[in-house]
Amino acid sequence: MSLRIKDVASQAGVSVATVSRVLNNSNSVKPETYEKVLQVIKEMQYKPNAIARSLKVKNTKTIGIMIPDISSYFFPEVVRGIEDVANMYDYNIILCNTDLNRDKEQKYLQVLTEKQVDGMIFMSNIITKELGAKLKSLQIPVVLVSTDYEDLPAVTIDNHEASKRMIEYLIEKGHDRIGMITGKEDDPIAGISRIEGYKKALQDRGREIDCSLIVAGDYRFNSGYQGGKKLLTLSQRPTAIFAASDEMAFGVIKAAAELKLAIPTEIAIAGFDDIDMSQKIVPSLTTIAQPMYNMGAVGMRLLTKILNGEDIETTKIVLDYSLVERETS
Amino acid sequence: MSLRIKDVASQAGVSVATVSRVLNNSNSVKPETYEKVLQVIKEMQYKPNAIARSLKVKNTKTIGIMIPDISSYFFPEVVRGIEDVANMYDYNIILCNTDLNRDKEQKYLQVLTEKQVDGMIFMSNIITKELGAKLKSLQIPVVLVSTDYEDLPAVTIDNHEASKRMIEYLIEKGHDRIGMITGKEDDPIAGISRIEGYKKALQDRGREIDCSLIVAGDYRFNSGYQGGKKLLTLSQRPTAIFAASDEMAFGVIKAAAELKLAIPTEIAIAGFDDIDMSQKIVPSLTTIAQPMYNMGAVGMRLLTKILNGEDIETTKIVLDYSLVERETS
Repeated sequence: MSLRIKDVASQAGVSVATVSRVLNNSNSVKPETYEKVLQVIKEMQYKPNAIARSLKVKNTKTIGIMIPDISSYFFPEVVRGIEDVANMYDYNIILCNTDLNRDKEQKYLQVLTEKQVDGMIFMSNIITKELGAKLKSLQIPVVLVSTDYEDLPAVTIDNHEASKRMIEYLIEKGHDRIGMITGKEDDPIAGISRIEGYKKALQDRGREIDCSLIVAGDYRFNSGYQGGKKLLTLSQRPTAIFAASDEMAFGVIKAAAELKLAIPTEIAIAGFDDIDMSQKIVPSLTTIAQPMYNMGAVGMRLLTKILNGEDIETTKIVLDYSLVERETS
Repeated sequence: MSLRIKDVASQAGVSVATVSRVLNNSNSVKPETYEKVLQVIKEMQYKPNAIARSLKVKNTKTIGIMIPDISSYFFPEVVRGIEDVANMYDYNIILCNTDLNRDKEQKYLQVLTEKQVDGMIFMSNIITKELGAKLKSLQIPVVLVSTDYEDLPAVTIDNHEASKRMIEYLIEKGHDRIGMITGKEDDPIAGISRIEGYKKALQDRGREIDCSLIVAGDYRFNSGYQGGKKLLTLSQRPTAIFAASDEMAFGVIKAAAELKLAIPTEIAIAGFDDIDMSQKIVPSLTTIAQPMYNMGAVGMRLLTKILNGEDIETTKIVLDYSLVERETS
């Protein structure tokens, strides 16, 4: 009976994915685990290459992408970045819209595994423990984009810093009462980090945090519109509102227009993302520019490096953001 | 030596694709050709099913989509419609961005053929004779969405009527000088049809066509902005501008704002498409609503029918559009 990778994993007391990472010289394995796995491979007298080959019969030159929704504003540009790099390296793409639905996620993970994609790019907001474990146990390299989880390779920006930076900018502009429409409160990346950044900036400047000025949103237009209405009809209304996505900021603009408040003189508005429309609308939107195209392109490049066994400096890549000042502030 | 489909095609003097269509009971084959091919199949004593099976070893349950650019505003919603129906019928999608580049188109057609996709959805503006012939010669069923070519299955709207309808509406609103920013002038579907609709509406009402009021665009924001600037600085400027895409209409809104012209009192603006942002911007945009999601969903459904050999009433599906009146007019 031939030795299988799971026998090695079992002997070493690690997951199959970990053995696979060791075989691929991945940096994401702890040195002590790495040594231990190599030791077991040696003891069992099997050549890594033979085992590596048993993982997968052949390359399919196909990459799976899991995104929440291709018809949202953020993801098409990221997908375009992925696609352009995939194209350069002759990979094709299978696109899966999960709608942030856990069942769909599971189903697509299954489908992509069956189709033997060479690798996967996973974009979503929240990786639960269950999903994280699942992603780690796949025998397929995964790169996370715009999200993060433990030691999985990931491409992100520093959401906390970016949010803090925007609030500092608004304070410098003379704003004292700054409202925020947040992302999802159970989302560690685009939700919590940005809320914490907002709070930190206020605290650093000795400002008190007024909870009535923080409204929960879900990144989409309507939650921004509703949140904007709520904040702008407070007896003591804010003079600036920071929304954790551009789409929500558009909702705030609409709310301000309905309340006949002048932008930016009566209410300043800032967003997060810098989606393409933000520079095209009137007034154009002040925002944090995420390098969406690059997040996709860098994520895909990282995946090709992993697939080709190239040297990788780090599997946690943090890209630069920038604050773009426009007409709404 | 076993008989191959190309022997039948050669004997019947038709393309392999035509024999394939006959075997799939496609309605897109002329009755006389249909009879002739069946006759040859009979003479050569081969059962259609055996030949049909030789076409392709097995279904890959994969569909190729060719679109100009997933990061534009029109296509993500269409792709979402395709994906949802594909999902229902257990098809996966391989997405190809062509950038309207002929070389990329050729390359992707090759890739999709090699990957043995079961079918293909092609979305683009202009199908040249060369490309049309190529699409017809593939042994893969193709459905066109938002474009059309000869007898290939297609899902569209009546662009000529829709454009005419918008101009009639603007005339009814009291506008006498109506400018137009057109689509591409060599694009029979979204270009020429919409220009002709504009002209027809004016002629029907006994209006003269003033060529200085027609400016060429390319569907994108910048061409709308430039065209808007040009029209709005004419010594006798129009009182309404119709843009052949919403994105161009956003450009006109920006141009009007810079020239401090009030919308809609000094200049009315109308678009075409009804992309998601059109209802979200301030002022919201009057436009022709194309059923983007349905175009994708219906196109994909048509493809599944073709693939399953279901009865098809027509392979030329024209969906309804509607005129959406909003704040810019």
